[in-house]
Amino acid sequence: MSGEVDDAQMAALAMACVWRGLSLEETVALTKAMVESGATLSYPSKAFVVDKHSSGGVSDLVSLVAVPVVAACGVRVAKLSGRALGHTGGTIDKLEAIPGFNATLSMDAFVHQVERIGCAIAAQSDALVPADKRLYHLRDRTATVRSIGLIAASIVSKKIAAGANAIVYDVKCGSAAFMREEREAEALARTLASVTDAFGRQGRALVTDMNEPLGRSIGPGVEVIEACRILRGRARDERAEHVCLAVAEAMLELAGVPDAAAVARVALTSGRAYRKFVEMLGAQGSSESALESIEPSDRRMPLRAEREGYIAAIDGAALGHAAREWAARDKGAGIIVRVRIGDLVRAGDSLAEAYGADADETLLRDAFAIEASPPPKRPVVYASYRAGERW
Amino acid sequence: MSGEVDDAQMAALAMACVWRGLSLEETVALTKAMVESGATLSYPSKAFVVDKHSSGGVSDLVSLVAVPVVAACGVRVAKLSGRALGHTGGTIDKLEAIPGFNATLSMDAFVHQVERIGCAIAAQSDALVPADKRLYHLRDRTATVRSIGLIAASIVSKKIAAGANAIVYDVKCGSAAFMREEREAEALARTLASVTDAFGRQGRALVTDMNEPLGRSIGPGVEVIEACRILRGRARDERAEHVCLAVAEAMLELAGVPDAAAVARVALTSGRAYRKFVEMLGAQGSSESALESIEPSDRRMPLRAEREGYIAAIDGAALGHAAREWAARDKGAGIIVRVRIGDLVRAGDSLAEAYGADADETLLRDAFAIEASPPPKRPVVYASYRAGERW
Repeated sequence: MSGEVDDAQMAALAMACVWRGLSLEETVALTKAMVESGATLSYPSKAFVVDKHSSGGVSDLVSLVAVPVVAACGVRVAKLSGRALGHTGGTIDKLEAIPGFNATLSMDAFVHQVERIGCAIAAQSDALVPADKRLYHLRDRTATVRSIGLIAASIVSKKIAAGANAIVYDVKCGSAAFMREEREAEALARTLASVTDAFGRQGRALVTDMNEPLGRSIGPGVEVIEACRILRGRARDERAEHVCLAVAEAMLELAGVPDAAAVARVALTSGRAYRKFVEMLGAQGSSESALESIEPSDRRMPLRAEREGYIAAIDGAALGHAAREWAARDKGAGIIVRVRIGDLVRAGDSLAEAYGADADETLLRDAFAIEASPPPKRPVVYASYRAGERW
Repeated sequence: MSGEVDDAQMAALAMACVWRGLSLEETVALTKAMVESGATLSYPSKAFVVDKHSSGGVSDLVSLVAVPVVAACGVRVAKLSGRALGHTGGTIDKLEAIPGFNATLSMDAFVHQVERIGCAIAAQSDALVPADKRLYHLRDRTATVRSIGLIAASIVSKKIAAGANAIVYDVKCGSAAFMREEREAEALARTLASVTDAFGRQGRALVTDMNEPLGRSIGPGVEVIEACRILRGRARDERAEHVCLAVAEAMLELAGVPDAAAVARVALTSGRAYRKFVEMLGAQGSSESALESIEPSDRRMPLRAEREGYIAAIDGAALGHAAREWAARDKGAGIIVRVRIGDLVRAGDSLAEAYGADADETLLRDAFAIEASPPPKRPVVYASYRAGERW
């Protein structure tokens, strides 16, 4: 950031990282330099603060649920979040579907809110890790985005600068994720945990499935509606709830909460997680009535199966792209997926519904593959890593 | 050059070339793009024109000899040349040691002189291959100089743009060369010959030894004096003469001259090569009397062997650096090397003489290694390549 290294030199270094890889020591050194390029946050109360990060997926509403669950259990959560990228929705875009919600907090206000009510979700500040923005733009235009070391340095530097004591990483893996191969996702997960550890913070990284949308809904408004159902213990689908709870459990464990899985579940069923979410909305300019005002668009297009068979694939990336595009003009636009990979459907069964004026049936139909035999089953959570350890 | 690709993208590409390599097709495509970035020369008479290039060495006076030899045999030679780089002397710097010599010809004047007297040596014009200068600066500051494909594209593009029908490349190999390893030098030689062939021009590439200075003299003025001795058939050392004749022979062969080796040698012994050189000096603002006025500096420092033994190594790079530095203030400064690797010397025997006020005995002494047993013998010319063929 001092100008000592110019764009050409940094781009050449990035390309060398892509082809030669970065060792753990090199990744830590780069991460440290990036952290030191800007401001860092600290919490005056010295309370234990946790954070979480997702590598990005479709229908990834985990932050909307896990943050208030953990805060409802008495552990402070400070989450700075990005906007949508490619086919993946950003948590900030989802929260901004709630009328009045203010995602642009000053870093002082962010810290203060975390101290006062136990959680905050705000847009990433330019004051933290300015080198990341510069390096990302450079990588984007020089085809050097795909390097585990550079990706890890970008992710971890922002988390370290934001001041959390413990960070849970949710590395999405599959056809609708940035990491399509399990080996790649595991390498990133291991690196994230180890680099975090090198900064004296606790890190845990999960690898979770992204071969189909995580929840049933795709689009900012409809995802907020689904997240609220999970927060109130009324989830209609166990898959999204499962990942939300796995992430919340890992966050609580790192904060030393005993029996974390049960504690997290009670936060949902008791309504405390939902009340904490409403409290956060209140602190950030919105309200429960604003939340309840969100509705899917009036324009609804159903998609039905043309023949009998097993759902073999759902093209989450295509659905994510479409929903993001439609929602740019209509916050109620989106897609509700009625089936899961492996489900047996008969001709005429509902596969999905699209909401919004732009909904396109061909695109929707092409996203669902039906075959005569069922596909192999996949787990939802593949693996979990700490520094130097798989468990 | 249109600005469509920025410095960062080009630097990232260069780094990818370093680590991934360029195929022959990719190298040809890059070379073609570079040629098309600027002007190209052509010869109105349609006469066959040859050119030569050296990858750079110490005491590399080959162009001063081979160009007039070939022209004296009736074949036109058009040579655009660079300046000194690192420890290697540039042909232009050597010619400028001759009072009055004008190396900065317009491209029209250059072409006209080649047509009129049969040869010209002038400084590389910025009008030809402007992309090379831009790319080289970028490679220099991004540690991406070392790529066979990028090196070949840089060299060949300038030769193609200069319009020769046939080009002989002299790839220096050894401790005082850019290519230290024989395998690397051979790969570059093969690539230079093949890329040249892809442009429909004849190419031949020699790999020659650069583990010690080529001739006896190092420094612009003293190298001109040595080149004149060779041109008059009065060489004191067969090594430099051998490479000059090998290059001239290859140039003549490509031009279809029968019995090229004998013809080249007669050009030296008959004095025709020397007269052609003087004619070229006359055409470029200088004269024979100016040539004869060059003398080594008055300040002379002899270096004598401290003990008996075999010359095991001569650090040409160190001598080249020193001579270049001394000559910057005094064109008569330089080094005369009195021994060759493998020579047996006794205590008190002359190893070298340094000329000029800045001469440094320690530096000079450290450049000569004397050992009890003789080193293995090396050939002077290692190999010769045409496109797709070794002979």
